[in-house]
Amino acid sequence: MKYRSVIVLATTVFLGGICFAQTNQTTVIEDFKPSSVNQPDKQYPQVNSEGRVRTSILAPEAQRVQLDIGAVKYDMKKDDKGVWIGESAPQDEGFHYYQLNVDGASVPDPGSLYYYGASRWGSGIEIPAKDQDFYAVKNVPHGQLREIRYFSKVTNSVRHCFVYTPNEYDQNSNKRYPVLYLQHGMGENETGWGNQGHTDLIMDNLLADGKAKPFIIVMDNGSVNFGGQRPPVAPRPAGTADTTQRRRPGMGNFNFAEQFQKILLQDIIPFIDSNFRTIADQQHRAMAGLSMGGMQTRIITLANLDTFSYIGIFSGGSISMDDVNNAQGFKEKVKLVFTSFGSRELENRRAGGGPNASAFGGDPKVNSEALKQAGINSHFYVSPLTAHEWQSWRRSLHEFAQMLFKD
Amino acid sequence: MKYRSVIVLATTVFLGGICFAQTNQTTVIEDFKPSSVNQPDKQYPQVNSEGRVRTSILAPEAQRVQLDIGAVKYDMKKDDKGVWIGESAPQDEGFHYYQLNVDGASVPDPGSLYYYGASRWGSGIEIPAKDQDFYAVKNVPHGQLREIRYFSKVTNSVRHCFVYTPNEYDQNSNKRYPVLYLQHGMGENETGWGNQGHTDLIMDNLLADGKAKPFIIVMDNGSVNFGGQRPPVAPRPAGTADTTQRRRPGMGNFNFAEQFQKILLQDIIPFIDSNFRTIADQQHRAMAGLSMGGMQTRIITLANLDTFSYIGIFSGGSISMDDVNNAQGFKEKVKLVFTSFGSRELENRRAGGGPNASAFGGDPKVNSEALKQAGINSHFYVSPLTAHEWQSWRRSLHEFAQMLFKD
Repeated sequence: MKYRSVIVLATTVFLGGICFAQTNQTTVIEDFKPSSVNQPDKQYPQVNSEGRVRTSILAPEAQRVQLDIGAVKYDMKKDDKGVWIGESAPQDEGFHYYQLNVDGASVPDPGSLYYYGASRWGSGIEIPAKDQDFYAVKNVPHGQLREIRYFSKVTNSVRHCFVYTPNEYDQNSNKRYPVLYLQHGMGENETGWGNQGHTDLIMDNLLADGKAKPFIIVMDNGSVNFGGQRPPVAPRPAGTADTTQRRRPGMGNFNFAEQFQKILLQDIIPFIDSNFRTIADQQHRAMAGLSMGGMQTRIITLANLDTFSYIGIFSGGSISMDDVNNAQGFKEKVKLVFTSFGSRELENRRAGGGPNASAFGGDPKVNSEALKQAGINSHFYVSPLTAHEWQSWRRSLHEFAQMLFKD
Repeated sequence: MKYRSVIVLATTVFLGGICFAQTNQTTVIEDFKPSSVNQPDKQYPQVNSEGRVRTSILAPEAQRVQLDIGAVKYDMKKDDKGVWIGESAPQDEGFHYYQLNVDGASVPDPGSLYYYGASRWGSGIEIPAKDQDFYAVKNVPHGQLREIRYFSKVTNSVRHCFVYTPNEYDQNSNKRYPVLYLQHGMGENETGWGNQGHTDLIMDNLLADGKAKPFIIVMDNGSVNFGGQRPPVAPRPAGTADTTQRRRPGMGNFNFAEQFQKILLQDIIPFIDSNFRTIADQQHRAMAGLSMGGMQTRIITLANLDTFSYIGIFSGGSISMDDVNNAQGFKEKVKLVFTSFGSRELENRRAGGGPNASAFGGDPKVNSEALKQAGINSHFYVSPLTAHEWQSWRRSLHEFAQMLFKD
């Protein structure tokens, strides 16, 4: 991606009179505001109405500082006080991971909050979305996001997950609730759906509007030992920096669901059913996930139709009629198959590239439609103008949650 | 502090043969291991048996990289592949904030987990402590750390806190529990007692050993508008880096408890009593805090003896007989005054310096003893060989919790 700019400045206070004039001029709209996910009292990073990200860092002795976002590195400029400033091309609405590069060191931006993704805790930023109201913090009854530790017999260790309980859970001490098991993507962990995904806020707002049934959501860590076929992850050589490249091993060559399926069925579900007021049967149990978590959902639900009745696959492939025909009792047991992608993923798919072009299960829209024709409650959702990123998955959860446990 | 070293290497793999020989030689013991609070799969930072911190970062174009810990900056050395490595002098047992400095840019270490303290999310490290077993993750019944949102009428906004519920809370749906309100220090927030403090693990282990009564713990954000006397915090100039200097305004010149007291009494306590199964009376309510949170505890409890009966002040001053005599009914109403410091804070105090030499209320040990002589249940605890840091406060909570709600 090419990126050339002349920065049109309302003030020159930050730039000390340095002129950025270049041959091909891009006008940057000077309406930047601090990002909604900045650290307290931090003025940078900022976002403008075009979705450009501008950040700034003091690095008086540095020779080169770059803003690294969306797989593009943007050179920043230094003023005479040693303060670097620079901005990106416009980004899609929603959440993006990014980092700074200071003389070759890839580091988090000290101004941003940090999130676990791309296999590291690092910077994230929000480009305000037109539909951000559905995950806004409002004065509505709020549920709780509970941090839970439990002992896993499968791994012989204490594991860690998050459980969302709706606001009414603690008010109705006799009522029991259905459960959604909700999984993150590769390079992420159990914090993703709460931190980046705003699962609690999405549910609080849906429940306040009467648009969803109350249910419990369990968010565990699906990045577990992938078994004998696990792609090798060599110990990182001393001091080599993290990169934003997500590890993308060949998905067809290893079983990334086997070990997590064991933990889920033998440890997590029994623990949740023992420690929360669940309705502990197939009719009241859903599983969904994004990307790798969607692929895990597809494999685990197809193999366990007596355990799950609602299936959500976000940017993680789809279920074909072959899958249906190979899974005994599918039509009788499955109440919903929800498949979703970001529109930019489908564009990539049609262009024969992109991260999900090789996802399991064939063309997802064709598959979804075939299931519908076969009388299965199948929904296909496309998130407008978003890619393989969290805005697609927030929207997917928002749609999916409204369809759960309604019959 | 002077620091000179020759690194005695078992292997030279990381250093590419660079020799660190200097005039005054310090032998570094080469038994470094990855820190227990590293990001997943990260080999650095590491800690050795002396408590030295060694870290490493790829920064091929950098001219100078430093490890900044304990208010000292240690120069790191670059090998021929652009990997910098270096280590600190021995650190005290327990948790420390730190950062890296890359050509003048103060940034988090990409290898560590991040914590909120010193008014920023940044790197933290654990020096293994001889007594670390009391906050270790064990296969015991675990409580829950719940993330809660509630509406504050005082601030007219949705606020955020954490609530620890003991394991048995969800098993005994009719039992009611006492509550401890537990506050962080200046430059920290409501995440501190859970993340750095290991409050949940300390309580889980104490309860498993039958050493404490079960109670609820509420951890809110006490860094609120300090009122008209608030020390000015100017908007940070564009791009100036964060520093590890804790803001230390003159404590005597502003009322840092007034606004938080309002929120606590008018919003937080009523919310907790409405939404959790509390015993909502003075006899079953405690308040404690560290540093600024201890000072807030001192002021708020002295002014509200009909609300709190147990008082814990960790590295935040003490209660004098003058305080007792000025607070009507103190002797009848207060069941426990617990005062604690790290031993190094008291050394600083005797030397006439250090961060707590000017803490409110006079000599804490003398004060504590005077209260005891007056028939008040007063305890003074000193954390061995620790300073104004989290290991002092973990130990203080561990001691204090065993004395709560026992009569």
